[in-house]
Amino acid sequence: MSIHAVPPLTDAPAQVLLAHLAERLGAAHVRTDPDEIALHLREERGLYTGTALAVVRPGSTEEVAFVVRECAAAGVAIVPQGGNTGLVGGGVPYGGIVLSLARLNRIRELDAVNATMVAEAGCVLADVQRAAAEAGLLFPLSLPSEGSCRIGGNLATNAGGTAVLRYGNARELALGLEVVLADGRIWNGLTALRKDNTGYDLKNLFMGSEGTLGIITAAVLKLFPGIRSRATAFVGLASPHDALRLFERLRAAAGAELTAFEYMPRFALEIVLRHHAAAVRPLAGEHHSYGLIELASPQQDADLAGIFEEVVGAAIEDGLVEDATIASSDAQRLALWDLRERLSEVQRYEGGSIKHDVAVPVSRVAEFIDQATAACESEMPGVRVCAFGHFGDGNIHFNLSQPVGMDRNAFLAAWETFNRIVHDIVREMHGSISAEHGIGLIKRDELPHYKDPVALDLMFTLKRALDPANILNPGKVLALGENLPDALPAAGA
Amino acid sequence: MSIHAVPPLTDAPAQVLLAHLAERLGAAHVRTDPDEIALHLREERGLYTGTALAVVRPGSTEEVAFVVRECAAAGVAIVPQGGNTGLVGGGVPYGGIVLSLARLNRIRELDAVNATMVAEAGCVLADVQRAAAEAGLLFPLSLPSEGSCRIGGNLATNAGGTAVLRYGNARELALGLEVVLADGRIWNGLTALRKDNTGYDLKNLFMGSEGTLGIITAAVLKLFPGIRSRATAFVGLASPHDALRLFERLRAAAGAELTAFEYMPRFALEIVLRHHAAAVRPLAGEHHSYGLIELASPQQDADLAGIFEEVVGAAIEDGLVEDATIASSDAQRLALWDLRERLSEVQRYEGGSIKHDVAVPVSRVAEFIDQATAACESEMPGVRVCAFGHFGDGNIHFNLSQPVGMDRNAFLAAWETFNRIVHDIVREMHGSISAEHGIGLIKRDELPHYKDPVALDLMFTLKRALDPANILNPGKVLALGENLPDALPAAGA
Repeated sequence: MSIHAVPPLTDAPAQVLLAHLAERLGAAHVRTDPDEIALHLREERGLYTGTALAVVRPGSTEEVAFVVRECAAAGVAIVPQGGNTGLVGGGVPYGGIVLSLARLNRIRELDAVNATMVAEAGCVLADVQRAAAEAGLLFPLSLPSEGSCRIGGNLATNAGGTAVLRYGNARELALGLEVVLADGRIWNGLTALRKDNTGYDLKNLFMGSEGTLGIITAAVLKLFPGIRSRATAFVGLASPHDALRLFERLRAAAGAELTAFEYMPRFALEIVLRHHAAAVRPLAGEHHSYGLIELASPQQDADLAGIFEEVVGAAIEDGLVEDATIASSDAQRLALWDLRERLSEVQRYEGGSIKHDVAVPVSRVAEFIDQATAACESEMPGVRVCAFGHFGDGNIHFNLSQPVGMDRNAFLAAWETFNRIVHDIVREMHGSISAEHGIGLIKRDELPHYKDPVALDLMFTLKRALDPANILNPGKVLALGENLPDALPAAGA
Repeated sequence: MSIHAVPPLTDAPAQVLLAHLAERLGAAHVRTDPDEIALHLREERGLYTGTALAVVRPGSTEEVAFVVRECAAAGVAIVPQGGNTGLVGGGVPYGGIVLSLARLNRIRELDAVNATMVAEAGCVLADVQRAAAEAGLLFPLSLPSEGSCRIGGNLATNAGGTAVLRYGNARELALGLEVVLADGRIWNGLTALRKDNTGYDLKNLFMGSEGTLGIITAAVLKLFPGIRSRATAFVGLASPHDALRLFERLRAAAGAELTAFEYMPRFALEIVLRHHAAAVRPLAGEHHSYGLIELASPQQDADLAGIFEEVVGAAIEDGLVEDATIASSDAQRLALWDLRERLSEVQRYEGGSIKHDVAVPVSRVAEFIDQATAACESEMPGVRVCAFGHFGDGNIHFNLSQPVGMDRNAFLAAWETFNRIVHDIVREMHGSISAEHGIGLIKRDELPHYKDPVALDLMFTLKRALDPANILNPGKVLALGENLPDALPAAGA
């Protein structure tokens, strides 16, 4: 069985389709103005620019279902978009329509006793967080783009972020979903239950499918007790191996109260200090590696500083930690986090970057950093490794900044070479070449190199079973013969 | 598209198949002795008795794959069995072979730093728990049958148990799987990663599918820091509504340290005290409702008793809790848990039982208990409601003991009537008619009454896509025209 790309639509049927949609949704919600469409054709880093007939903005789940039915009947592809903040080109359309979920932005219900919220796909993540906080609860998903990304996109891509260590990925934060299927039917799976063994798991099939199996229109989100105590430390270490040993000790001592264990090398801290005027050096001396560690508890007066004093104190005595500081105010805490959060931004000022979002078992994360750093430095002397990230999850953003003075394009021409070096080490360690960003377009053609072939075949089987006409986000995650550009952007990023 | 039941195999081809299997596995592992087969034909409560050509005991994943390929070629159904402790008839064969995973019982690897273990499907749950404990870690899944159930079955049925409140269901306790597919291919999905966004979630498709989509042969299990502090309380309350308010307060105060919140009504405690000689009344007076509550922490000297004193103390002052005791020794703690764990057993001595394993949103669990109790008592005056269970998960084992002196069979004849009453209330509250036991055979024909029709259709789509010949555990979860007995056992249980 093979699935062919959705053929380009000739003008007349396209106009008929758009007229049908406008009739139901209102002309204001079927946008064909090229300038307006243009905003939906590019992804954040400008790696791809697509094309679309229109941006369609349904206002309800029923309208989403209507749009899908009409598009399915006309054989027109649909690319769902939330905040369009994805980093792998998953939301870039190549023909067909962009279906924006932005108008589905109601929080339908918040049940504080059940600790759940029913949010529509178009709710901005920060608004979801705020609604939980107003009820004294926590929705823990937290990302740099939380002010503009939308919860439907977070779920469709199984977003990660800085709270995964304690609360899990997006998949673990939803109890139920409402999904419009490829044939326009609505699956109402908005269950708010902690336990439900009435058949196959459907929810996890749509989460992480990047809009290729169905369109998430709403979800039941899990909420947690609000945080009432917090302690944040910044530590200097001689190596990622020492960071790993410290992580082990803290996990054993703090359990679920260990909510973040982020890592950055000296180079990363240096470039933040260099380019971010407000940044203050957190420790007097310089160290090979740094850890940003947070403990948090819903208990009012949890003795979290006591845990740091005991564990980090002993680690200093043992020579495992070279230096440490514990934030003594909220302002200090935010300043420490700011060092971490500025990292993506400041890399820009150091020239071209080649980025990898990888994961290995936590037990191998230090070894991975060492080995991949050595391999890249050996491939290109002078390359500056900026391997930082969610150390406690085994998830490293293994980014490379170009050698000082090198031509940017000459550096970016090594994109595939570095991909191969880094991803081969990841594979050898039974890791993942996409820990949290997804596959989209940018890693689609890399996937067959690294994915178990039986798993890949199962993915094709599921795509064919759930979207036999290949209407939903065609050409993303899996290649089914669509006429899309090369997955790898020629210019790099 | 429709799938027909696997036709009965005439003797000669069956003998050829079994000879092939014996050649590869050794004759000792293809058992055809009727007495030995008989042990695999019944489920625990004796509700069903099936038939099978043989019990086949492969010793490796490759042998499982071989057996599946041979059976697929011969058109012979396969019923996978672990410990055969399921409660819904999911492991009862009706023709074909029983594929026992019992010999796949190695713990292949334990990575303490990554906090993961690779266990084969046939490992007994208690052995998995023990291996984790020996490494100073915790595998939290805990069930009454843990001494004989096997981890493959736990995962295939997405088992629940008493640790779900803190650690989640079985699905949340596995990071990766190895699965033999319906065509005999092996999917190696034994990833030990906390983050992996390289495509669709396959793992959750097999977990909870009750052996109908694939045969789990091994899994990567998540481990947690070992428990080093614990506090257990038993409280008397005036109603389940007061229990819910206490639950809310404890969850807010203790967060992840609240590891269990179990509930039982007065009738339940009374029958344990009546039939279990060693049971000691935990509180001097009598109360409408009881809670068994546990706090636990990996921290050495966590002040858990302090949380109880503060929260339960305030609740007593507010009149929310009528009386409470906190275990002051491990022996006392175990004695309190024993009251809870004897409940399934002692119901037998009170005559016939009609059981329901349901869940509702936690916010509605007290209301559910009240409403369903009233409806059942009104249907049959004298019926004794034993509604106990995992209150903090919204999961109630809503069991009915027959009126004193009533004929057992006359009572059990009301099985369907009570099912309808209880399940209709569950539906009205957007609950689940099978919270943790699964569908199997016993609830298969009940499912279409209560499941969203689109969800049910998606389940059929997945079954057809992954097991087009209907070889794997046919007739369980979904009816595809197999010639099986009525789902509802005539005699009740």
